[in-house]
This record gives sequence, structure tokens and C-alpha cells, in this order.
Amino acid sequence: MAARNKIMTLNAGSSSLKFKLFELGSGAGTALKAIASGVCERIGDPDGVSFLRAKVGGGTESKIDQALPNHTAALELVSGFLGDAFHGDFTQEVFGVGHRVVHGREISQSVLITDDVRATIEKASDLAPLHNPPNLMGIDAAKATFASAPHVAVFDTAFHQSMPPEAFMYALPYELYVERAIRRYGFHGTSYKYLTQQAARMLGKPESECNLVICHLGAGSSMCAVKGGRSVDTTMGLTPLEGLMMGTRCGDIDPAIIPYP
Amino acid sequence: MAARNKIMTLNAGSSSLKFKLFELGSGAGTALKAIASGVCERIGDPDGVSFLRAKVGGGTESKIDQALPNHTAALELVSGFLGDAFHGDFTQEVFGVGHRVVHGREISQSVLITDDVRATIEKASDLAPLHNPPNLMGIDAAKATFASAPHVAVFDTAFHQSMPPEAFMYALPYELYVERAIRRYGFHGTSYKYLTQQAARMLGKPESECNLVICHLGAGSSMCAVKGGRSVDTTMGLTPLEGLMMGTRCGDIDPAIIPYP
Repeated sequence: MAARNKIMTLNAGSSSLKFKLFELGSGAGTALKAIASGVCERIGDPDGVSFLRAKVGGGTESKIDQALPNHTAALELVSGFLGDAFHGDFTQEVFGVGHRVVHGREISQSVLITDDVRATIEKASDLAPLHNPPNLMGIDAAKATFASAPHVAVFDTAFHQSMPPEAFMYALPYELYVERAIRRYGFHGTSYKYLTQQAARMLGKPESECNLVICHLGAGSSMCAVKGGRSVDTTMGLTPLEGLMMGTRCGDIDPAIIPYP
Repeated sequence: MAARNKIMTLNAGSSSLKFKLFELGSGAGTALKAIASGVCERIGDPDGVSFLRAKVGGGTESKIDQALPNHTAALELVSGFLGDAFHGDFTQEVFGVGHRVVHGREISQSVLITDDVRATIEKASDLAPLHNPPNLMGIDAAKATFASAPHVAVFDTAFHQSMPPEAFMYALPYELYVERAIRRYGFHGTSYKYLTQQAARMLGKPESECNLVICHLGAGSSMCAVKGGRSVDTTMGLTPLEGLMMGTRCGDIDPAIIPYP
């Protein structure tokens, strides 16, 4: 029987599927080591010009052109590539799959993807319409490929669940929160969690003593106030639209502009 | 002929009309002195329970109950009250009328209310629907009562016209600014202008050397950054909705909440 010593991580976008494969060292206390990574792009392209770029360890990058009508086909291509690189039954060695999921509503940590959790991710699709639906496609494809492994959702929203009510409540009728879950959620939480850990390491003190202002700047941008290692406020809100101006998102604007005739 | 030594100031709300009457001293360099003030409330009340509260100089307040179907009726009641307090042709002594107007689009100072200016105020009504329409009712009523005096509009927006583009432009398509004038205007400008003057006086330096952060807090609230005596940024935007949370306005919220199903 194959050693079950690998973790697969997936980040499924609307037309992309990023992966990174980790291997657990054999000694006690050994860290995870990234042994392969890559990305399928232009999944679902009407002209079929999809491709996979990937590399194993510190090797050179391979590019494989192949029509990928959906995320299931993309994951099959990734599995085939990794099977060639390692050995045919590599999928059996994966003892856990981590999925990046953008919106998890009020889920405050990484969780096993049960039917209830899947339903929550689906329900949150109207709050992150560019992200949650493809995240689910990636989950469904991976559950077929890695059928025997537990699948875990890692939410962009979870890190911000420590925000106090004065930070996450809008000055809107309270029923909108109680009945419709309209509140500030915040995003980029996996990045903020990682950066908090790194800052603590660099500052040589425990996370619980770290007070930070973190800027996550990219096509999607946000900022986060971290107090004692926990998020206490952030610029993104109910959706990833609020806050800083971004590549394709306006960030804060007068809300009255939306219905302005 | 009566001395033309009085200035009338009016602030017309949807169901109210505030006034303050000033008199110019006779010596050179003498300041304006408030000689009467008051407010008509519940104008247009369906039960006709409108009233005027007013006082002359440091005297006690009078209350006059009278049905006031519109702003013209309210201004007639004010004129009658002041006529009794001073003398019948007091309106002839008014050599200028100042009108508080909330939204003046890109007008950068107080201006004579010409037909063009009236049209601009009307055009800006969809940007300040609670304020500009009653402001116009007050202007029209006062032009009838004080027919021979020049009427001047003092805009809440004018003080903020010194904001640089990076403060007043939204991260929205540029055409929305060019074609539809969608930009940050800011409000409470008359208050900020006054407070800047007062701060300069208290600090004993010219306005051009005053850098201030001013909070205007009331049922409607905003903040303003003043650099060298001029507004360089403010929390309110295209309309008085953006920014701080207020009595009946939510202030900043994720713009995606508006179309949220």
C-alpha cells in the first residue's frame, strides 16, 4: 500500500485551477515540503486553448496544451501529470485536500466539507459570485479524484470572525443582519493569518502580542487591523467590493451612486 | 425712505423655515449684529398645526400658532412678525438675502441667484433630494417678499471645491464624471468655513496656515481635512449619504449591499 504522506491544496477560479502538492517528512516534527505546483488556465475556453503549466520540485516548468471543458477535466490533467512525475497511484498517497474558498459566512475556522458546509458555501455564492461557484466546482471535482481523503475548506472570511460587532455591523436595520446575514465579513483572511504568523516570527514574539496593520495589495486589495494576533477590523465588507480601489472593483463609493438615475 | 441696513438669512427645509435678521452698524468697520431670529415648523402639516417661534434681540421667545400651507405663507408670517417688531416697511430695509442651499454641484463660492444658478440648484435636486427642493421653495418665496434685494445662494458644497482630483474622483469610469458629474462634492461647507475662521482666530494665525481635522456632528455628520485653510478631503460624497453613520443615513456601507437580492 502506498504511503499516505501527501497533502493536495487547490484554489479553483472561474477559468483556472491552481494546485500545490506537499509531502510530509518522515521524522517527527518535520515540516511539510512543497514537491509540485502548477496552474490550469483558460478552463472552459470556447476555442479549447486551455493549458497546464506545472513543475515538480525545483525542476523546469512544463506546459501541456489540452482542451479543458471544465474543472473535472483540469483536475484529471493535473493528476495525470503528477502520476507521471511520481507514480500511477499517487492519488492514493494524498491524505488530505485543502480548498481555498472565498466566502464562508460566519464559519470561523477551516472545516471538513460536510453536506452542511457545502450548502453554506453555495448559499454564500451571491456574496462572492466570482469566487464561490468555481470554488465549489473545484471541490466537487476533487472529491471525485481524491475520494478517500478528507476535504477541508479554508475560508478567506474565517480570520475576520474575531472582529467585534462595532466593526462588523453596518448602520442598517438590525433585521438585515438577523434575517439576511448582512454584515461585514472581510476577505483575504488566509493571507492575513499567514502574514500575522510571519510577522510574529520576524518580531520574535507570540502572535497574541502582535498589533499590525497589514496591506494585501493586488488586483484585489484590502487592509486589516490585527490586535493581539486577531483581526479587529478590515476594509472589505459583505462582499469583496468595499474598501480600497482595485483592479476591477471601485471600492468605497457613495452608496447613493448605485440608484442614482 | 427707509435705511437699507439689514440682511435676511434663510434656511428652508422640507417642513421648516429658519431665519436670522442682521443689521449693519452705522460706523465704518462695524460688524453685522443679529437683531431677530426664529423658525417656522411643520409647514404643510395636514392638520394645520404649524407655528412660528421667534424672538427679537435678547427678548423672550414668542410662539404664534398658524396654519402654514407652504413656504410663502411661512415667510409672510415671519414678515408680519418682524413688521410688528420693527415697522411696517421693514422689508424695504433688507438690502440682501442669503439662502443656505445644500447642493451647488461645482459652484465654488456664494453667488447671486440668477436664472442659471436657479437651474443648477434644481438640477442638483436628485443629489440632495431632502434639501435642494425646499431650498428652492424658500428662494422663490423670498424673491416675492424681498423683491428689490439681491438674493445670494450660500452652498454647503462650495468650500470643498478646493479638493484635489485624487480626493474628489471615485474609482469609476471617467465618463460618469464628465457626462454625469458623478464625483465627491462634500457638504457642511458653510460650517467648515466658519470653523476654519474661528480656529484661525483662536490659534492666532492666518487661515492659510491652519491644518485642521474638523468633525461636524449632528443628525447629519461629516468630517473634513483642512490644509492651509482649504478643504482637501471630506467624508460625504456625491450626496450627503456617504461617510459617518448618521441619524437617518447609514454612511459608508459596501455598495454591493444595494443590489443584494
